[in-house]
Amino acid sequence: MKKLINDPGDVVTEALAGMALAHPDLRVDAANRIVYRRAAPVRGKVGLVSGGGSGHEPLHGGFVGHGMLDAACPGEVFTSPVPDQVVEATKGVDGGAGVLHIVKNYTGDVLNFQMAAELCAEEGVRVASVLVDDDVAVTDSLHTAGRRGTGATVFAEKIAGALAEAGAPLAEVAKAGEEVVARSRSFGVALTPCTVPAAGRPTFELGPGEVELGIGIHGEPGRARAAAAPARELARVAMNAVHADMPLSGDVLVMVNGMGGTPLAELYIVFAEVAAFLREKGATPARSLVGDYVTSLDMQGFSVTVCRLTGDLTALWDAPVATPALRWGR
Amino acid sequence: MKKLINDPGDVVTEALAGMALAHPDLRVDAANRIVYRRAAPVRGKVGLVSGGGSGHEPLHGGFVGHGMLDAACPGEVFTSPVPDQVVEATKGVDGGAGVLHIVKNYTGDVLNFQMAAELCAEEGVRVASVLVDDDVAVTDSLHTAGRRGTGATVFAEKIAGALAEAGAPLAEVAKAGEEVVARSRSFGVALTPCTVPAAGRPTFELGPGEVELGIGIHGEPGRARAAAAPARELARVAMNAVHADMPLSGDVLVMVNGMGGTPLAELYIVFAEVAAFLREKGATPARSLVGDYVTSLDMQGFSVTVCRLTGDLTALWDAPVATPALRWGR
Repeated sequence: MKKLINDPGDVVTEALAGMALAHPDLRVDAANRIVYRRAAPVRGKVGLVSGGGSGHEPLHGGFVGHGMLDAACPGEVFTSPVPDQVVEATKGVDGGAGVLHIVKNYTGDVLNFQMAAELCAEEGVRVASVLVDDDVAVTDSLHTAGRRGTGATVFAEKIAGALAEAGAPLAEVAKAGEEVVARSRSFGVALTPCTVPAAGRPTFELGPGEVELGIGIHGEPGRARAAAAPARELARVAMNAVHADMPLSGDVLVMVNGMGGTPLAELYIVFAEVAAFLREKGATPARSLVGDYVTSLDMQGFSVTVCRLTGDLTALWDAPVATPALRWGR
Repeated sequence: MKKLINDPGDVVTEALAGMALAHPDLRVDAANRIVYRRAAPVRGKVGLVSGGGSGHEPLHGGFVGHGMLDAACPGEVFTSPVPDQVVEATKGVDGGAGVLHIVKNYTGDVLNFQMAAELCAEEGVRVASVLVDDDVAVTDSLHTAGRRGTGATVFAEKIAGALAEAGAPLAEVAKAGEEVVARSRSFGVALTPCTVPAAGRPTFELGPGEVELGIGIHGEPGRARAAAAPARELARVAMNAVHADMPLSGDVLVMVNGMGGTPLAELYIVFAEVAAFLREKGATPARSLVGDYVTSLDMQGFSVTVCRLTGDLTALWDAPVATPALRWGR
């Protein structure tokens, strides 16, 4: 294993230190491992908190800032954040209008955010939660009861964040997040495994001529091991899986996401195939993201996430955002 | 070789098709392989054109847009663009105030941009050029007479682009680009080789316990093959090489750039070490970029580029920019 790290045990702490130095708009609580928007808590605004295992950068710390998250709680690599951490972040971003938790559907995350929400409620902080479970590849898995949460997390954080920034009340912000999840589906494909620093070896084996269809963001198995194939075929497998679960039509927001080790040019090639697929089905890729947003360390591969837009959701997507990984209009 | 491509011969064309679909602010001339800013030519504004081999995405197409490049000319992977392509782009962005070519110092790029500039001059288009040669690792190399051009290209494109956007004349825009280059130095480290799609195998061999110090962005050899080491030591090798060539002091703009296959969290770890080094030397990392900006396909590793800022350069860096890969203030 060759990685740009010092000690495997220090990866999360040292990466947070680098983030703090690189982004003056963020404030990092190193002791509690929380990335805050510098302005937090914003008085009268619903606070947004997300979090989960590290190793998926820029998720979640890279989405903290104006128009998106108020705080992110990174756990150890591929490990849930602890309840105390989430409690601290929730209290830290409560500007009096309550706090929304955006939680990816993994058993540990769900339990720890739930426990944190209960502890916060006891202290008088109103908390609502949105559970993201967009991955159509598998129902139940190694780390999940029900579908896994992946790329739709970015959409939910952006859209709920825009609504919170506009001053909407907690229930409305939560409802928008839920609507995004209900309208979104994802599917991922891996060309290579990833290597967790503390383990020092690949999370699974994949032959030189093989790919994993329906890969999870921690390297969990998907639907099938298959022979490597051209990008257009892999894109089609992913889009057929999405379309079979949620027929695509009208304007859609589509993300072609890199798993961390995939060159950007390859993601654009996949995006061209995805856009062609959408048009065949009578859908329009009205908004898009192409790049690394929800990664799995150094894994090569991609995932595609599609959200069926409404006029309201489109306007919220277009609203200004200023975070390390997503920025426009400011 | 597993890659998200269809045919190795179609990589550049299909990636450009994806870019065009993903970024409505760009206009792609597929036949000539040119990425234009949609508004080009901007009347009365100096046009900026850059280009070079593909495989370094987001460089250069990802830097086309308001406040940066007017056009980018991608060659085949790791291959210079041809003179006709550059001529077409240059004429296409000439708004009557002349055009600046920003050229990385590789023999093929230099020759082809020079030939293009001469052909343009014959047609009455005024062209000036800035040659980027910031890599301190080696003098002369496989593809270069003199130092190689790497990360400072991004700085020159951004700062000259801001000045052009502000309406400055060609000579002044060129001078700013030259000033950036004179004040910038880079050094790169590879943990793995990269694989050119058409070749189908790694560009060089690197043992499981080895790194290449001073790597070039096409996998060219650097200064030394060394044993893999912690991030803090590798960061220090890079920064010592930069500091030995150009003593660092005052405010600096620093980029910790990923080679394409490196997780973002690792780049933040390197950035923390780089920032510590700068402070030790009495310099301040006043502005920074951490992420993939000048890649080498799927190579794992990083490069660091430092520019000694002035007040003027800082203001130009901070000016609004709206491109796929760099965006703020709009």
